[in-house]
Amino acid sequence: MNRLCLHTMTTKPWSLEDCARHYPKAGVTGITVWRQHLNGHDPKKAQTMLQDAGLEIVSYCRGGFFPAKTATGLQEAIDDNLRVIEEAHALGAPLIVLVCGAVPGQDLATSRQQIADGIDAILPSAQQANIKLAIEPLHPMYADDRSAISTMQQANQLIDSLGSPSHLGIALDVYHVWWDDALESQIILTGNKDRLFAFHICDWKTPTTDLLNDRGLMGEGCIPIRQISDWVDATSFTGHREVEIFSHRYWAEDQNVYLNQIAASYHKLYDNSL
Amino acid sequence: MNRLCLHTMTTKPWSLEDCARHYPKAGVTGITVWRQHLNGHDPKKAQTMLQDAGLEIVSYCRGGFFPAKTATGLQEAIDDNLRVIEEAHALGAPLIVLVCGAVPGQDLATSRQQIADGIDAILPSAQQANIKLAIEPLHPMYADDRSAISTMQQANQLIDSLGSPSHLGIALDVYHVWWDDALESQIILTGNKDRLFAFHICDWKTPTTDLLNDRGLMGEGCIPIRQISDWVDATSFTGHREVEIFSHRYWAEDQNVYLNQIAASYHKLYDNSL
Repeated sequence: MNRLCLHTMTTKPWSLEDCARHYPKAGVTGITVWRQHLNGHDPKKAQTMLQDAGLEIVSYCRGGFFPAKTATGLQEAIDDNLRVIEEAHALGAPLIVLVCGAVPGQDLATSRQQIADGIDAILPSAQQANIKLAIEPLHPMYADDRSAISTMQQANQLIDSLGSPSHLGIALDVYHVWWDDALESQIILTGNKDRLFAFHICDWKTPTTDLLNDRGLMGEGCIPIRQISDWVDATSFTGHREVEIFSHRYWAEDQNVYLNQIAASYHKLYDNSL
Repeated sequence: MNRLCLHTMTTKPWSLEDCARHYPKAGVTGITVWRQHLNGHDPKKAQTMLQDAGLEIVSYCRGGFFPAKTATGLQEAIDDNLRVIEEAHALGAPLIVLVCGAVPGQDLATSRQQIADGIDAILPSAQQANIKLAIEPLHPMYADDRSAISTMQQANQLIDSLGSPSHLGIALDVYHVWWDDALESQIILTGNKDRLFAFHICDWKTPTTDLLNDRGLMGEGCIPIRQISDWVDATSFTGHREVEIFSHRYWAEDQNVYLNQIAASYHKLYDNSL
């Protein structure tokens, strides 16, 4: 069985029902459900629908966004993350991706402390529900308002600082960290600490015309995806490879055509290593 | 005397004559000349014009772009950089900024080796002309085609690997490195090694709508410019603070109005520490 998983956000125009109907036809075996795609659904019924379609629920996206200018704001973020854990539990998702957050103009060190405090506050609930939390380091171009955690090293240091608790690890997205000369060594370290929890793929286009929504299909850009995948496979990670593409261009396409493009680019990249 | 310097690229629509005429009226005391603004001028006459206007020539922009897919390409880049050194010498510029380069799809480690080889090849000419070369780490969002050197740490390691030669140092631009949690320690290290050669300022807007040409005026974004400046001032660096803003929005303005905005934002930031 292949390890191809899609984020519902990759085919943003589709409903969760569309995803359940179409993904399997292209050989997709895993699905990462975004909160906005679960919205309006009964999570238990959604779980049944996805499982009946032959899709493994890989992750729930997304929690995080802890930093805030006030203590009230931080508490609201913690409360919201506790709801995310409840939703993931009801859906049967074993993992939540954390986009940690940042506040423009707030000192990054302050934001990082709030992120640590926020994770510390929600972790017991995640552990009790047996749901893993995966910190996703985001590209430094998102350090203004999306994540004060920009590198694998920062994510590892944060987890270390919390005492390396169970159920807390890292989601590695090639788009965010491909440029980092410490990437290979950090993947090895993360694997050795049994905290490499998720692996996201897409590509970096030249030129990139939008900071958020111009990601490329695998093979369309400059990221050495296969090299990074091989580093990941050299750890004990055996999970899905999750295709997470935000793209105004691809969202405007016929999503069935696009789905076949995704599957083709995946197989071109991995067909000698299913 | 204040330490306000402008890159000619900041007021891109202006000719070098325009810069010489207008900059001093706003209290600007330094100028960093871009190659395209020197193009068509006799460098010696340009030097005289700028000096007569009371402007100190701070830097010449820019050399670099060494990585190439062929040995011929690398040699052409080296030859072009030797011409840049000649131009800087003729202009009387004491420093050249290096944007080191990258080739989309080429392994970053290969590009970094070519950068080291390229700098090694041109450094004797720079030393002979008594011109400093300043490696400018570029934001990781430019790692595809502009710079395989993304952090101060990488720049420092590169210089170390070349034996810490004279005339080779770093140009720190807050736009590129503000997000890095190693920034303060790397500034201290760079200062201790007497290789902090230049300091560029502007701001990071939220949202940023263009990867290249949507930089903000100081104060318009989230970069802790004054904090970083204080770290720089705590080293032995006493050079100009160079305003380098690429902005379709500001280039479309009346450049004299814009020049006054720049001076006002500079003074707001620094007036208790001229």
